[in-house]
Amino acid sequence: MPTDIEIAHGYTLRPIEAIAALLGLEANDLEPQGRHIAKLTAETLRGLRSRPHGKLILVTAVNPTPAGEGKTTTTVGLGDALNRIGRRASIVLREPSLGPVFGRKGGATGGGHAQVAPMERINLHFTGDFHAITSAHNLLAALIDNALHYRLPTATGEALDARSISWRRVLDMNDRALRQVALGLSGSGGAGNGPVRETGFDITVASEVMAALCLANDLPDLQSRLARIRIGKDLAGTPVCAGDIGAAGAMAALLTEAALPNLVQSLGGSPAFIHGGPFANIAHGCNSVIATRAALALSEFAVTEAGFGADLGAEKFANIKCRSAGLAPAVAVVVATVRALKYHGGMALADLGKPDPAALARGLEVLARHAENLAKFGVPVVVAINAFATDAAAEQQQVLDHCAKLGLPAHLCTHWADGGAGAEALAHTVAAIADAADPHAGFRLLYPDAMPLADKIGTVAREIYRAEGISLAPAAARDLARFTEQGFGHLPVCIAKTPYSFTADEHVRGAVTGHMLPITSVRLAAGAGFVVALAGSINTMPGLPRSPAAHHIGLDEYGRITGLS
Amino acid sequence: MPTDIEIAHGYTLRPIEAIAALLGLEANDLEPQGRHIAKLTAETLRGLRSRPHGKLILVTAVNPTPAGEGKTTTTVGLGDALNRIGRRASIVLREPSLGPVFGRKGGATGGGHAQVAPMERINLHFTGDFHAITSAHNLLAALIDNALHYRLPTATGEALDARSISWRRVLDMNDRALRQVALGLSGSGGAGNGPVRETGFDITVASEVMAALCLANDLPDLQSRLARIRIGKDLAGTPVCAGDIGAAGAMAALLTEAALPNLVQSLGGSPAFIHGGPFANIAHGCNSVIATRAALALSEFAVTEAGFGADLGAEKFANIKCRSAGLAPAVAVVVATVRALKYHGGMALADLGKPDPAALARGLEVLARHAENLAKFGVPVVVAINAFATDAAAEQQQVLDHCAKLGLPAHLCTHWADGGAGAEALAHTVAAIADAADPHAGFRLLYPDAMPLADKIGTVAREIYRAEGISLAPAAARDLARFTEQGFGHLPVCIAKTPYSFTADEHVRGAVTGHMLPITSVRLAAGAGFVVALAGSINTMPGLPRSPAAHHIGLDEYGRITGLS
Repeated sequence: MPTDIEIAHGYTLRPIEAIAALLGLEANDLEPQGRHIAKLTAETLRGLRSRPHGKLILVTAVNPTPAGEGKTTTTVGLGDALNRIGRRASIVLREPSLGPVFGRKGGATGGGHAQVAPMERINLHFTGDFHAITSAHNLLAALIDNALHYRLPTATGEALDARSISWRRVLDMNDRALRQVALGLSGSGGAGNGPVRETGFDITVASEVMAALCLANDLPDLQSRLARIRIGKDLAGTPVCAGDIGAAGAMAALLTEAALPNLVQSLGGSPAFIHGGPFANIAHGCNSVIATRAALALSEFAVTEAGFGADLGAEKFANIKCRSAGLAPAVAVVVATVRALKYHGGMALADLGKPDPAALARGLEVLARHAENLAKFGVPVVVAINAFATDAAAEQQQVLDHCAKLGLPAHLCTHWADGGAGAEALAHTVAAIADAADPHAGFRLLYPDAMPLADKIGTVAREIYRAEGISLAPAAARDLARFTEQGFGHLPVCIAKTPYSFTADEHVRGAVTGHMLPITSVRLAAGAGFVVALAGSINTMPGLPRSPAAHHIGLDEYGRITGLS
Repeated sequence: MPTDIEIAHGYTLRPIEAIAALLGLEANDLEPQGRHIAKLTAETLRGLRSRPHGKLILVTAVNPTPAGEGKTTTTVGLGDALNRIGRRASIVLREPSLGPVFGRKGGATGGGHAQVAPMERINLHFTGDFHAITSAHNLLAALIDNALHYRLPTATGEALDARSISWRRVLDMNDRALRQVALGLSGSGGAGNGPVRETGFDITVASEVMAALCLANDLPDLQSRLARIRIGKDLAGTPVCAGDIGAAGAMAALLTEAALPNLVQSLGGSPAFIHGGPFANIAHGCNSVIATRAALALSEFAVTEAGFGADLGAEKFANIKCRSAGLAPAVAVVVATVRALKYHGGMALADLGKPDPAALARGLEVLARHAENLAKFGVPVVVAINAFATDAAAEQQQVLDHCAKLGLPAHLCTHWADGGAGAEALAHTVAAIADAADPHAGFRLLYPDAMPLADKIGTVAREIYRAEGISLAPAAARDLARFTEQGFGHLPVCIAKTPYSFTADEHVRGAVTGHMLPITSVRLAAGAGFVVALAGSINTMPGLPRSPAAHHIGLDEYGRITGLS
């Protein structure tokens, strides 16, 4: 079987100007980045503001499993299929992180004949947006340690308190050894590099700068968000922000290009915007508002994805991204595979090839719950069964029958093998539903801005995770009260939780109920514009596995990159 | 007086395709990166190999001073002037590092009317080459710590010895607090992120990956160099290289785009290649061989610069870069200013505005020594006096008279104020000398490959720094013997020394003699292809000053970047 990169090399890509023309854009709307990648110019983006908007299609999924679901692949396949049936659709994705590319996952540009291209460039560096975010984030860190070193007064009038600094550093790399470090040590010379303090590195996608960029309306809004980022306290205990130490302007200057959305194409020739990629637990896990709005202004349909499963990803897509940007999805597509459903039904990964209708039935309860959850947002649901060559026909039929019983439109899709042609039935259903209604009429958020922060967390826990309630650690409760006093009570909440379970325990599978959601701590992300509630420990710097993907990546005799998938 | 960025904004740039056309290149020879920046494609580079070569002009300077010399500015001005007098010249520069941009220096794209553009893009991120180098460097670091964590065997058969690891991490940032860190600490969870060990971060320009990229002939050569990078030893004491832990392929994959040279334009409309930018003390401080060769294949003259003053920069340009790449400069231009010469003559920075013919005369001994040194390489020398508005005419005349006495052609140049028109006399002289001779006939290296490593260091110390000799620390002598045993005795030496003095003490000014050069330690840079000899302590991670330039960088109301200079 050919690998993804081999399949991609079998396609001849069109010049990016030809793809832009499908959107009604001309060459001077683009900042080319090679022949097949371009950024939209700032001027072009300003011109799009008054355009009528297309309809937003959200692709989400059952909880992720080691068996793979194909959410990005389905997003690409659906976009291609909509264009094949004569509708003008754009695909809107998140940028891949280098960490997983060299770690366990390989690339993140879809698979089979449903990929975006050029996959080597997109998976490695792309247009440098993540590097710019890394630089802006670490410039703030360097300015903080420099202010500590020279005991500079902040805008609050006092110097920073070294013990209070919560701002860490980032690298776009899986690097376990950097999770916790002591810095400011002196070399043999003994000259002062200090103060010495403990801190650590996160992966770049976990940066609040990334989340701020993805939620910003434009560059001035981004600069305001950067200025609001909390970095710690001064010696009098007053909170200090990036703006208080003169960092926001230079950070914004580093992000002027990164704030512009990137245009590429799918193997099927559809326009694809790929921009931003925040973590889906401590952040909201969606591509940028700027890219989503551009796609909506330029297409009938913008097909986009949210992070992880619908419990984490779609909830944050609605309550954080749509709330902030005034967006409303017309349809939600829930991606499932027979293998993933059987895994959720309790089967071991190694056994997924064996038939087990009972396990599949239990897994279908998980699918049904995600569909029910999405209905709470007033969004019509369509199920996409991403077909694997190894699926038994009877199992696929069992999924279709169950969806029919629930009244859920469902389609078996073969876009991995067949490209957009394999998702045309799905596309017809999605387009028909989207055409029939005004999404803003039906869409509703799960909680109002005015609800107290703790109640917002409880609402998501009960309505989406189906918990009995939350157990809020005393310090977390005090912090929420403090955030409210400080004027941040109106923000939405971003629950950082394992994506593998409806509970906070990643080993608990299935459509469980009756659990309590433990909130161990909370954090204010004032720049991003949400309050993070941590349910259990979340690792924000992955490690490389024993046998990293990096060992298998290299160049062939023609200098072409091999080993990406 | 307008700032550099304001002057630059007064020019209308031409599309990069029009600049490429000056070189005989067509649109499909370029990978555009926006409208005014492009990379040459790998195919185009291959096609240039058989082209006849133009002549190489080296721009170097007296030792750097806080008063500024304008080496990059003069390189740009001379390139513009050569084009103005009807010769086809390319400018070939190093890429700026983000560290100094946000630290003390501001930008690094020339000044006044002798700049390369677009200066915001070039100074911030540019085409992402340094970010790619950062990623490749840190991927190797992450693979090392991962191999330590899992105690993986290397290709030598043994696991790595954590105490032996010499490979540090890098960031393109001035960040004092990262100079020395302890990593692998455990967070509150206590789970193993270790082993715990002390290491640190250098600035990206100090990376051996940067030096290897700048000396590589092409991508396969770069991959071989990466594989040879020494990272430490295994538990049996055997040296271990990046290739021994399976890192070189993925590192090369990260560098495929970074290995392609970048084309921009000067404000005067000359083609300018800007590619690579290694440190000029622990590395060789020159732009890439790939860019220099491309410029030579496409122009009558390639005008390039070396790092720091001629003692460090031009010596390494010749003994390392020209040796490795088979290049030979036709002319060396030594840049000096009246102010810098008076500083070398012993005046305080604050007093440089006052006339002091005696101090200027002492400074002229420094200029004369650099000219003598360059003559040892068989390279004709021309002096460029970079005029400042504050210079007294009598002082400028004193410099011209002294040069005449020494038989050195010298020109007063006003390219900062007047662009290329201000350096036309210099251009006529340079072109006449270059036209008159075959540079390869006259050029000679200072020492042969076969000379023992310690003697190579001694030769540079005596011939260039005018030291009595070197004092080699016992451990350094043992290490040199070991490198020779291991088959690296043929490599050139790269002396890491303060650029501010002919001695190893940065406070000793003037054309001193009689000193000993202390070599405290040596390092093998097998990937770059040289042996580093450290004369005193060299700081490879700058700190931010008390009032960093970052505080003054920002966006104006139109989203344009302000505060760069």
